[in-house]
Amino acid sequence: MVIKRVVFPGRFQPFHKGHLYVVKKLLEEYDEVVIVIGSAQEGFTCANPFTASERFEMIHKALEYEGIKRERYWIVPVPDLNKPLAWTSYVISMVPHVEAVASGNPHVLYLFEWFGLKTIEVDLIFPEKYCGTRIRELMCRGDEWRKYVPEPVSKYIDEIGGVERVRRLCHDKRY
Amino acid sequence: MVIKRVVFPGRFQPFHKGHLYVVKKLLEEYDEVVIVIGSAQEGFTCANPFTASERFEMIHKALEYEGIKRERYWIVPVPDLNKPLAWTSYVISMVPHVEAVASGNPHVLYLFEWFGLKTIEVDLIFPEKYCGTRIRELMCRGDEWRKYVPEPVSKYIDEIGGVERVRRLCHDKRY
Amino acid sequence: MVIKRVVFPGRFQPFHKGHLYVVKKLLEEYDEVVIVIGSAQEGFTCANPFTASERFEMIHKALEYEGIKRERYWIVPVPDLNKPLAWTSYVISMVPHVEAVASGNPHVLYLFEWFGLKTIEVDLIFPEKYCGTRIRELMCRGDEWRKYVPEPVSKYIDEIGGVERVRRLCHDKRY
Amino acid sequence: MVIKRVVFPGRFQPFHKGHLYVVKKLLEEYDEVVIVIGSAQEGFTCANPFTASERFEMIHKALEYEGIKRERYWIVPVPDLNKPLAWTSYVISMVPHVEAVASGNPHVLYLFEWFGLKTIEVDLIFPEKYCGTRIRELMCRGDEWRKYVPEPVSKYIDEIGGVERVRRLCHDKRY
Amino acid sequence: MVIKRVVFPGRFQPFHKGHLYVVKKLLEEYDEVVIVIGSAQEGFTCANPFTASERFEMIHKALEYEGIKRERYWIVPVPDLNKPLAWTSYVISMVPHVEAVASGNPHVLYLFEWFGLKTIEVDLIFPEKYCGTRIRELMCRGDEWRKYVPEPVSKYIDEIGGVERVRRLCHDKRY
Amino acid sequence: MVIKRVVFPGRFQPFHKGHLYVVKKLLEEYDEVVIVIGSAQEGFTCANPFTASERFEMIHKALEYEGIKRERYWIVPVPDLNKPLAWTSYVISMVPHVEAVASGNPHVLYLFEWFGLKTIEVDLIFPEKYCGTRIRELMCRGDEWRKYVPEPVSKYIDEIGGVERVRRLCHDKRY
Repeated sequence: MVIKRVVFPGRFQPFHKGHLYVVKKLLEEYDEVVIVIGSAQEGFTCANPFTASERFEMIHKALEYEGIKRERYWIVPVPDLNKPLAWTSYVISMVPHVEAVASGNPHVLYLFEWFGLKTIEVDLIFPEKYCGTRIRELMCRGDEWRKYVPEPVSKYIDEIGGVERVRRLCHDKRY
Repeated sequence: MVIKRVVFPGRFQPFHKGHLYVVKKLLEEYDEVVIVIGSAQEGFTCANPFTASERFEMIHKALEYEGIKRERYWIVPVPDLNKPLAWTSYVISMVPHVEAVASGNPHVLYLFEWFGLKTIEVDLIFPEKYCGTRIRELMCRGDEWRKYVPEPVSKYIDEIGGVERVRRLCHDKRY
Repeated sequence: MVIKRVVFPGRFQPFHKGHLYVVKKLLEEYDEVVIVIGSAQEGFTCANPFTASERFEMIHKALEYEGIKRERYWIVPVPDLNKPLAWTSYVISMVPHVEAVASGNPHVLYLFEWFGLKTIEVDLIFPEKYCGTRIRELMCRGDEWRKYVPEPVSKYIDEIGGVERVRRLCHDKRY
Repeated sequence: MVIKRVVFPGRFQPFHKGHLYVVKKLLEEYDEVVIVIGSAQEGFTCANPFTASERFEMIHKALEYEGIKRERYWIVPVPDLNKPLAWTSYVISMVPHVEAVASGNPHVLYLFEWFGLKTIEVDLIFPEKYCGTRIRELMCRGDEWRKYVPEPVSKYIDEIGGVERVRRLCHDKRY
Repeated sequence: MVIKRVVFPGRFQPFHKGHLYVVKKLLEEYDEVVIVIGSAQEGFTCANPFTASERFEMIHKALEYEGIKRERYWIVPVPDLNKPLAWTSYVISMVPHVEAVASGNPHVLYLFEWFGLKTIEVDLIFPEKYCGTRIRELMCRGDEWRKYVPEPVSKYIDEIGGVERVRRLCHDKRY
Repeated sequence: MVIKRVVFPGRFQPFHKGHLYVVKKLLEEYDEVVIVIGSAQEGFTCANPFTASERFEMIHKALEYEGIKRERYWIVPVPDLNKPLAWTSYVISMVPHVEAVASGNPHVLYLFEWFGLKTIEVDLIFPEKYCGTRIRELMCRGDEWRKYVPEPVSKYIDEIGGVERVRRLCHDKRY
């Protein structure tokens, strides 16, 4: 019996409820989701405040809290190649066999269509609300951001001093 | 409660019984093992015939067959940086928090000692027998290699035509 | 009307009569051949004595001498990625649209089969004679090498002091 | 007899009438122009919507339509190094021997002056009109862009759905 | 007797009085300062107009003018890795043994804290005045910039035509 | 008054008396020598056991012991690019202005000749004795190696456990 898998790449800065919704939706159709943490080499910058290690833990904690068993997903950090076309085969060569890629990002969808893999354009729920950039801005301004991320993610961000980190890194926007 | 994790890097060309033995040993002491597939960008060469995708599946099948639950391990492919000292923080930044690194390779042990992570020199069982290079040579010569790898690994290698692949790739040693 | 093209990658250190034979054969079936100069970043080493610039000129001179018009081929230097799987889409994204890849190298054939492009295993004529490594060894030893390469190639190699270069670079095999 | 060649690097997103004008001007002085497609690794992003493969075809079709024979030019895609000073020798080592570089870009002119190659500052015709960035903006807004590119280029862009692609990729400016 | 060293990374575009002040302060506490020229691969762009070679000379001339002996500092250019976490061990592996890192940049401070090196948050004097970005803007606008840099630096910038360079490179902000 | 500088690249695994002899010879002709530590990213492998940090200290200690003042030299670690032709401008862009390059390595001499810099082929004294590879082999075999390196270098190697390190790393030649 062949396992039906789908790959879902994202930066997850941080992993929010929109991401969680996509994972759940994909698990209705597929046996397993391979969550690819993109830009895995990044961390401690304004746009990418969290390391791949931290994002790995956020995702794991959020899915565990939701009762999603580890049998249903893999988490695979993939560093940037800065060669978008080559990145397609790079990703596919490093994850277990997948049948499709799911994304809300037209860049990613075009790339994998070019590569020849089945693409699934995911319905993002309230993309203007569940959006990493916006959540980081709310953190900077001291506004309410916790409700946009799964509970274990906000708890973890607190533990690692994430809000203070985002504020300091984004104060001078160059980093 | 903090999860005690250890990282175990290797090339796993292929994943053999010596590797399996190390994973089991580490699971006696640690809650989870993070199996890092090194040289993840490689594949279809004499020294690295299997892609990271294939090695990922080999490891998963072998551990499943042994009854090791997914709650006990992660599989993380990491491409080479070709910058050994920088590779230390590269790896650590992409895996969930670990307390130690386990390896039988002095290069890896020296690197992480330099980095400041606890290192565990693993006892390899019969390293002259359970050795990727030797197993690939046995494949080339048409000798018995199956007994050195877990059963699901030999089955998977047969499914993907692995023996024929190794022979063709190693016929001309340049690749 | 769609142009039927095939890509033919090689290192061409130097471009020899075996390569020329392949190009001619491919032109019987295809409108155009895209000659990819691999390891294009290399030069002035024992294994890769000639720069991509020099190899570009060798190929052009050889084909011109044979009366093969420029309408029938392109020459595209491609630097190594050191990521074999990613290299497939890297190459394909940088050459005009091709229908197939031709090679005598099992590594290249496996890679593009994996990628999903039609592969053509080329019949090398006398591969033990028409072989870059062997031709460079003949140069080192002061033996007859000229008859294995097209006339304009041997002339060009003489112009750039190629034999002396190979000897000096290979004297100390480390480079 | 030595062939007089000049190298003309650009991103060609897309190849427009300003570029064509430069190529024609250079062919008045030089035997051959080596058109270097810069940022060759890019594609399917807002700033670099077209792959090097597509840009290769655009340039070829445009020059063919103008009656410029292939004997007069080469097209060489060169991926970014992200090391501007090293990029100078990188480019020169991968193209056939050139006597000069032509550009309208001060960054490129400074680099090759530093490297020691003869530089030609090209007169751009109506740089505010014939400008890749502006042409892509016109595409996004649904304004008239076709008159700024050679006819075969606009036809090719239509064939590959280029306008729709630019719109979707630039809708969310992050890509 | 162990030499007490501190590493001070910066881009130094150009080396200004704020940088000089930090070096002097650090020399009150440490035997030697290792000045790391970051983004060493850059040059001839609007944001990074000066090559590492030029920045090396600026720093040396400024310190010599101040009477700081060479026994008190090293200058080490380090190219970007574009992998911030890996960059920490990369830098440390290439400089003589240091006890701490000094920086005014929160990104750098977070990175080395993560790595486990002692970090010193330096007091920048008048950071809004002594700021590379601002000094380059003053150059562009033709305003007074010389008083913000040590005298030998402004002299050197004049010698290499630095003001004209910054103006031309920043005229079109893309570079 | 212009400072006359020469660049002297090497791997210095370890820095031996042959290297020291070259530095002294060059200082007879030049005001300053820029000692470039090549393959600076390497360390803890059989062929490159010492980190750039350690090689930096070796060189400094050896020159200090010889009474060569810091005013006469710079030490600049440069990581490999794996792009030999591009490496030429890479190196030159990161060191203070030099008039020539000195080397005993034909690969390096050819590269910089191609680049257009004055090259000096250095007379190695007893290259079969003063040779990094051979010195590391002597360490492996437990033979006398100390007399081939400056006294402070052998002392430093002892301090860092260098002999034991070379033995363990070279026991399994793969690393």
